[in-house]
Amino acid sequence: MKSLGIEQDKWWRAPCALPWRVTLTVGAHMNQSAKNQTVKVQTAITPTREQNYSEWYQQVVKAADLAENSAVRGCMVIKPWGYAIWENIQRTLDKMFKVTGHKNAYFPLFIPLSFLEKEAAHVDGFAKECAVVTHHRLQMKDGKLVPTGKLDEPLIVRPTSETIIGASFAKWVESYRDLPLLINQWANVVRWEMRTRLFLRTTEFLWQEGHTAHATEAEAREETMKMLEVYADFAENWMAMPVIKGRKTDGERFPGAVDTFSIESMMQDRKALQAGTSHFLGQNFAKASEIKFLDQAGQLQHAWTTSWGVSTRLVGGLIMTHADDDGLIVPPRLAPTHFVILPITPKPETQDAVLEACHKLAARLSEISYAGRTIEVEVDTRDLRGGDKMWSWVKKGAPVRIEVGPRDLEQGVVSLSRRDRGVKEKESMTPDALVAGAVKLLEEIQSGMLAKAKAFRDANTKTIDDPKEFREFFTPKTAESENSPTEIHGGFASCRFAMDADAEAKLKNELGVTVRVVPMDDAKDPGPCILTGKPAERRVVFAKSY
Amino acid sequence: MKSLGIEQDKWWRAPCALPWRVTLTVGAHMNQSAKNQTVKVQTAITPTREQNYSEWYQQVVKAADLAENSAVRGCMVIKPWGYAIWENIQRTLDKMFKVTGHKNAYFPLFIPLSFLEKEAAHVDGFAKECAVVTHHRLQMKDGKLVPTGKLDEPLIVRPTSETIIGASFAKWVESYRDLPLLINQWANVVRWEMRTRLFLRTTEFLWQEGHTAHATEAEAREETMKMLEVYADFAENWMAMPVIKGRKTDGERFPGAVDTFSIESMMQDRKALQAGTSHFLGQNFAKASEIKFLDQAGQLQHAWTTSWGVSTRLVGGLIMTHADDDGLIVPPRLAPTHFVILPITPKPETQDAVLEACHKLAARLSEISYAGRTIEVEVDTRDLRGGDKMWSWVKKGAPVRIEVGPRDLEQGVVSLSRRDRGVKEKESMTPDALVAGAVKLLEEIQSGMLAKAKAFRDANTKTIDDPKEFREFFTPKTAESENSPTEIHGGFASCRFAMDADAEAKLKNELGVTVRVVPMDDAKDPGPCILTGKPAERRVVFAKSY
Repeated sequence: MKSLGIEQDKWWRAPCALPWRVTLTVGAHMNQSAKNQTVKVQTAITPTREQNYSEWYQQVVKAADLAENSAVRGCMVIKPWGYAIWENIQRTLDKMFKVTGHKNAYFPLFIPLSFLEKEAAHVDGFAKECAVVTHHRLQMKDGKLVPTGKLDEPLIVRPTSETIIGASFAKWVESYRDLPLLINQWANVVRWEMRTRLFLRTTEFLWQEGHTAHATEAEAREETMKMLEVYADFAENWMAMPVIKGRKTDGERFPGAVDTFSIESMMQDRKALQAGTSHFLGQNFAKASEIKFLDQAGQLQHAWTTSWGVSTRLVGGLIMTHADDDGLIVPPRLAPTHFVILPITPKPETQDAVLEACHKLAARLSEISYAGRTIEVEVDTRDLRGGDKMWSWVKKGAPVRIEVGPRDLEQGVVSLSRRDRGVKEKESMTPDALVAGAVKLLEEIQSGMLAKAKAFRDANTKTIDDPKEFREFFTPKTAESENSPTEIHGGFASCRFAMDADAEAKLKNELGVTVRVVPMDDAKDPGPCILTGKPAERRVVFAKSY
Repeated sequence: MKSLGIEQDKWWRAPCALPWRVTLTVGAHMNQSAKNQTVKVQTAITPTREQNYSEWYQQVVKAADLAENSAVRGCMVIKPWGYAIWENIQRTLDKMFKVTGHKNAYFPLFIPLSFLEKEAAHVDGFAKECAVVTHHRLQMKDGKLVPTGKLDEPLIVRPTSETIIGASFAKWVESYRDLPLLINQWANVVRWEMRTRLFLRTTEFLWQEGHTAHATEAEAREETMKMLEVYADFAENWMAMPVIKGRKTDGERFPGAVDTFSIESMMQDRKALQAGTSHFLGQNFAKASEIKFLDQAGQLQHAWTTSWGVSTRLVGGLIMTHADDDGLIVPPRLAPTHFVILPITPKPETQDAVLEACHKLAARLSEISYAGRTIEVEVDTRDLRGGDKMWSWVKKGAPVRIEVGPRDLEQGVVSLSRRDRGVKEKESMTPDALVAGAVKLLEEIQSGMLAKAKAFRDANTKTIDDPKEFREFFTPKTAESENSPTEIHGGFASCRFAMDADAEAKLKNELGVTVRVVPMDDAKDPGPCILTGKPAERRVVFAKSY
């Protein structure tokens, strides 16, 4: 887009404008009617973010070949490119969990009804949305297959595993010597959601759930915060997704927890996404599951437990943080493929030489270590038109595309395009220079993506003390184009709040706004509550959310 | 055990003796009553393999802390040491699948009843043992939580995914250009088994299932065999578990397949374990799921599909191939920990120096590459008696134990014990020599384990042409000790078979013996069928099995 003189990738610098509107600044010599006219730039994704944000999201998922809806209500199929991103998320987090002393294990998919009932708040939270197994065989009756073999006790497909893992912990823990118990599970879980959206909210999803037991409250609280830090570190340094860490208010707490903490990130429609949670469970679940230990003084005590999780929802967050109107942009550290090499072979007689050069370059790049693995390269030799091929990788969001054609070969160069720049921007360089600078280039793209996302969030976060301004901030403005269902509002509001649950519930009803977190890193800042005027100790983040 | 002059680890050399009996050869100067007397050797596992093979297996699983039964019928909890072995199996196979061009994806846990019905043989095979979800919420009624929200169509928890993946393939495949489609899924599956045993047969288990679609029968058949070879390669070179590759008879075929191939391994009770299967599905599932493509001539055709899988059952196979009466022995290439360093700290004043030496050695070993990762070392500083600590690692089967005490430190040596040798056997060496020879040592243990298992299998495999001898071979002999429920029979019988399904079914009823495979690597060897006397073309492997 640079060729048009439009800095499309700098839209986030304009805090209040719609981020994705491309306006051509025309010179004074042009006639009035052309002035301030919006130039329609052809994009790979229809509709654009501006036109219909929600539909844009679905189209990016489709165009990048990440996932699709299945025949089973609310369950998605994660396609290879989407699953490869999840595998990279998994591998990275798994290492971080192991470095912090956790071990993986696996617990049953099914939870007996009686287990779920043990923790009252917990069952309240999950009873309304769980898949129930009631039979264990099928039988042909009147030419129709029907369930038979009724179970004495129905089984719930796990929506989360506190109760079933608690039953094991109760067996494993006898004395203080068995503590802390630091376990993680990678698994699928099921929550019967009524409204689903690929990656963001699905009936079945993949996740990890950490479950730990400790001898003291202090240790369990320390663990809760440590894992929140791990999530924040991962989100910022691997996903290039800036997050705010903080505590949830009572209304947003995990069912059964004493304290829930989360990382919250701003999406491009300025709504918040809860990207990961870490719960301090106190002794609630230890009491429900009878996790007891003999302390050093020989006294029998209930353990203190925590749980923490992130899910395939992170892929949704990655998309909504980085994708643009041409499709996905994958942060290099999590990209399944870093460099895509596109052979340009217009003439059969130069084809072999071009392909050889491509594979040679791929081999050299593949030897380079990057982000805990080696650089992943794909030479795309598919039988497809060059333009379609190039665009397929733009839409998938591979960080770097390299074109190699006969003319490049003659000149001893290759042509490089970065996904974080305009699609038509190209740079020529020698293969040696490319190989030598490959890691630096990927890290530059990675840090650029984080900086861009951070600037967007900061530009759309406002400190507000005036209740009227607060209401205006969250009142949707109709998008500039007509018939656009995309609602634009202010973003994150940093306001004082007196932790009044009723006022919070009322706000949610009226404006669809909730307290996302009470940020941990902020100092106290006493003053009147934005909702009630009562004295408040600190500021919280108000936002609309997914 | 060498100190007793008993070569305990050579029991497998005696083809017909019970493998695990330890007999002391006494000199002529001893009195008659002591001669040929069985010496009771203290073992870590009670009962021994000889005393009660089935119970020995459960006790090894427990002593090695691999898994345990859960409160949910037939579902197991895989504990950290067991799960770490599975993770190593997973990582290794995943690489092998990717090298052969497969990509991972993820499909729904639930299968609509109507999908399962599409393939008649398939539904017959799985209808009797599947978990059925009929409701999607719970409600309090008379103080009791009951299922509510009945589903219009019941959902089956996947016992295998041919039908649900087929629905996606039908969408993904349009032309020959979309083929071959080479997909793998790592997932949990559920089969409502009546009799379960940890790892070997559980209601829920973890597995991978490869699903591929091809344009031609030849290509699909090639894929089927290629993946069988991958499994055989993995079993022999990573699990140190020798296998026989071959085709299943009609009676043992996967429900819906045209041809099923498997790898079969001999366990220490001489029974066969089917360790992996690869199915050529012909066009059966492509027709059921409407997987169609336009070929190069513009004709609409049904694709040819395959599926192949291995599961956590492999961990059971690993145990029954290698464990002894002291517990598990993990093949080094799959071991979660290769070297366990045990600090001997009898006196507080030498403790720091000993621990420092241990951690220094651990750091050096940890830098060495081995089997696609680095050597894993654990310095065991647990607050436990030295003997308990050492035995815990013997039972877990860590390949090498290193003891470092104050006296070793003075002499500049460490003391090394191999799990594949007698528990009391020790070797002194300098840390330098240990580090320099670490990889060689691990590979020596690995290849020794394969050789031992192969020798055991060969010693218990017999070519039989006489029907009477065949019956005797499979007739259980009571173990030498009284009251032993362990039945010992001959093992694998290589016999000619005329593929008579009735005779095979009768044999299964009478002796519990089936045709495990028609080996692929054997030449034709015509002669009379061992069961019917009719002309047969080749030999098959008859065995009892898990």
